[in-house]
Formats: sequence, structure tokens, C-alpha cells
Amino acid sequence: MKYCYEYPRAAVTVDCVIFGFDLSQLSILLIRRKLAPFKHKWALPGGFVRVDETLEQAADRELREETGLADLFLEQLYSFGDLRRDPRERVISIAYYGLVKPGDQLLRADTDASDARWFSMADDLPSLAFDHKLILECAWKRLQAKMRYQPIGFELLPEKFTLSQLQKLYEVILNRQLDKRNFRKKIMAMQLLIPLEEFQTGLPNRSARLYQFDGRKYRKLEKEGLLFEV
Amino acid sequence: MKYCYEYPRAAVTVDCVIFGFDLSQLSILLIRRKLAPFKHKWALPGGFVRVDETLEQAADRELREETGLADLFLEQLYSFGDLRRDPRERVISIAYYGLVKPGDQLLRADTDASDARWFSMADDLPSLAFDHKLILECAWKRLQAKMRYQPIGFELLPEKFTLSQLQKLYEVILNRQLDKRNFRKKIMAMQLLIPLEEFQTGLPNRSARLYQFDGRKYRKLEKEGLLFEV
Repeated sequence: MKYCYEYPRAAVTVDCVIFGFDLSQLSILLIRRKLAPFKHKWALPGGFVRVDETLEQAADRELREETGLADLFLEQLYSFGDLRRDPRERVISIAYYGLVKPGDQLLRADTDASDARWFSMADDLPSLAFDHKLILECAWKRLQAKMRYQPIGFELLPEKFTLSQLQKLYEVILNRQLDKRNFRKKIMAMQLLIPLEEFQTGLPNRSARLYQFDGRKYRKLEKEGLLFEV
Repeated sequence: MKYCYEYPRAAVTVDCVIFGFDLSQLSILLIRRKLAPFKHKWALPGGFVRVDETLEQAADRELREETGLADLFLEQLYSFGDLRRDPRERVISIAYYGLVKPGDQLLRADTDASDARWFSMADDLPSLAFDHKLILECAWKRLQAKMRYQPIGFELLPEKFTLSQLQKLYEVILNRQLDKRNFRKKIMAMQLLIPLEEFQTGLPNRSARLYQFDGRKYRKLEKEGLLFEV
């Protein structure tokens, strides 16, 4: 116990809510804890922030160590500081949420996680350690809200996608059916999708055109006041 | 130095970016530091989080102690964890932003602030302690963006306001002139303003009707999917 301070200090952790979409359902990445407290319980990937790393570096490191994931869209969500959220002592957690493209979802459980697994958001999730249910709900609300006014949904799709896949993503996250004609009109009016001369293969009747999101154009138009809206 | 831990720990602070609107310009609340580091420099109100208080309690307490402000709209902004943001040691700061109604702006400097003062956002601000310029910029961007998709602007207006005052607020924060007819059409279409049988007094030619924001109706419509948009 060689690090001493004049006043008691909270420990600081990061926790990561990672969403993935397999073109039909949305999933969340959980790890199974090896150690107490909440030994063997499912939890969000995360852990203590080292005094010599930034919050982002801590989130990246914990994700890589516990799940093998790297190089994904990761954004700060919210900080959780309730007094008794950790049974051991005062722990303040800075939460991040991440979005993973289909196919980037190779997992490897390591260090203090004995298992890392995707759980469908459509099913009942296992009970979670700490206040991780609250953190997950916060991330889920943020995703639902932000999808509508920021083009973050494209982070959950492959680089090339069909309009049906895009619509399906919105329907799954907003949890309701969207009118196909209105949806396409709204999306196309923003002129942020590049139509490709490539088509989805393997469909029974007709082939669907593939599109790419034009991130550069979006950032330019955003500066000029464009409101992304779905 | 009686609080000892196995690993070194960061200190945790809260910092508050408080905006006020006097019906013509937007201001930000700064305090002048009494103590090193950055002695006599202007800074955001804030300070260390006690181990037995939540983050919100810390923000409330620091604001009250340093500026006398209480009972205002206060929302978590972002957490700042760069390694060298405090010259003394590793300090992670959880930032809040607050909105104050005109007339609620009585100030009292106290504890480790020798002075608390409003600065117009239209003028050059004094140079700020720590990374507070960065935190302020983050809050300013959040306010500009969130004003357009959440009815937080009403927190900066008196309970009863005219449509001109509302438009002026948006013009000041978005930093551009808005077309009066379009603005009113958009605002009124959402049906969130209650027209009162009261009028602004003291105008030279004609009197302008006062309105109230219907927060209860907004929360109901929001659940049903209404997108607030200006």
C-alpha cells in the first residue's frame, strides 16, 4: 500500500457497451467475470484506468484484453458515480459505447474475463454485475436517439450495404416498422449515399444495389448546417 | 497522508460550464482562482469530488460554494482525462453544463474563488486555467447542437417569454439570423407553446404576446416519437 494521499480517493474505471449488428439483429458484447465481486456474472468489458493512460487508452486496452476487439467506433457515453455502485469501495466509472461492423466481431476472452460473448438485444439478457444494466440502458437510449440525428448507424453496417439493410438496421434499433417509401425518400434527400455499380448477390428474384456512406461529404455539409435526420 | 492504496490513483474533480442569457446576449460564468496552480486566473467553477458525495452533489456543492448558484438546469457534459491537464498530478474532471434563467443570476464568490463574474460569449474571454478552454468549447458545441433537437433553450428564458425573445436566443446561440416567418411556423407546428392572455409591456408600438413552454406535453409527445427540431 505505497500510494498515499491526504484525502480518500475513488478508484476510476472504464466500462464499454459494444453493439454489433449481423444484418438481422442487434447484439451486445458481454464478458463473464473471473474474479470477485460478481464472480462468474456477466458484465460489460472494462476495468481500472491506469494513472498513466488516458480514458480512451484505458477503454481500448480493456476491450482488447478482454474481448480481442480493436479499431472500432468508440465514443464516451456518460460517467457513473453513485456511492454504492461497487460493493468494494467508491468507484467512478466512465462509460463508452462502441459500434462494430459485421464480420469484425472475432472474439477472444482473456485476462480477467473467462468468456466473451454476443447477446441478442431481442432476447432476455443475463443479469449483469455492478450497475451495468443501468449503463447498458443509458447506451441503448443514446444509440436510439443519436441514430436519428447523426449518421452513426453506418458504423454498424458493412462498407457496402443495400437500402433494405439500412432500413432493417433502423427498424431494429427504433423498434418499429418504417414505411419503405418515406424512409428512402428521407435518406436519399440528404444525398449522403453513393450508389455503386455493384449489387447484392444471392437474392432469389432481383438484385439490390449497394451503397456507400459519404462521410467526407457529410462532414462538409454538417459544417454548413445540414441536419442529418431519419 | 493517511489514505493509502496499492496502485496510484487519479484525483477526480467536477467542472461546471454555466450559461446565462439576458435576453440579448449569452454569457458564461467564471471564477477567479485564489490558489495555485493558475492563481488569480479565471476558471470554470468546480473542485474535487469528495469520496462520500455523488458527482451531481459535488457539482451542486462547488457551484453553490463558489458562485452562490443553486437549483439550476445542470447536465453532465463529458469527462476529461488527459494526462497533463493539471500540472500537479493526474486529475480526471467530469464536466457539467448548466443553464440559468435571467434574474436567477445573483452571484456570491466564496471559498477558493475570489471573484465570480459573467462574461459575454460575444467578447474575447480571458485566458482560462487548466484545459477549461477545451471544456468550454465542448459545452458550447453541445449547447449549439442540443438546442436544435431538445427544448433545453427554454431553461435560458424566463417562464413567460415572447416569440421574439425565443428567436433572439436561437439567433445568438446558433450565431446567425433566422427567418421570422419560418422560425415561428416551425415552433408553432410542434404545439409546445401555451399562448397566454398576457403581453409584454413597455414596448413602443404594440404589445407582444407572452408564451409558456409546455414541458409536460413535450415529455408525453417525446415518448410518442416527436422530434423537437428548430
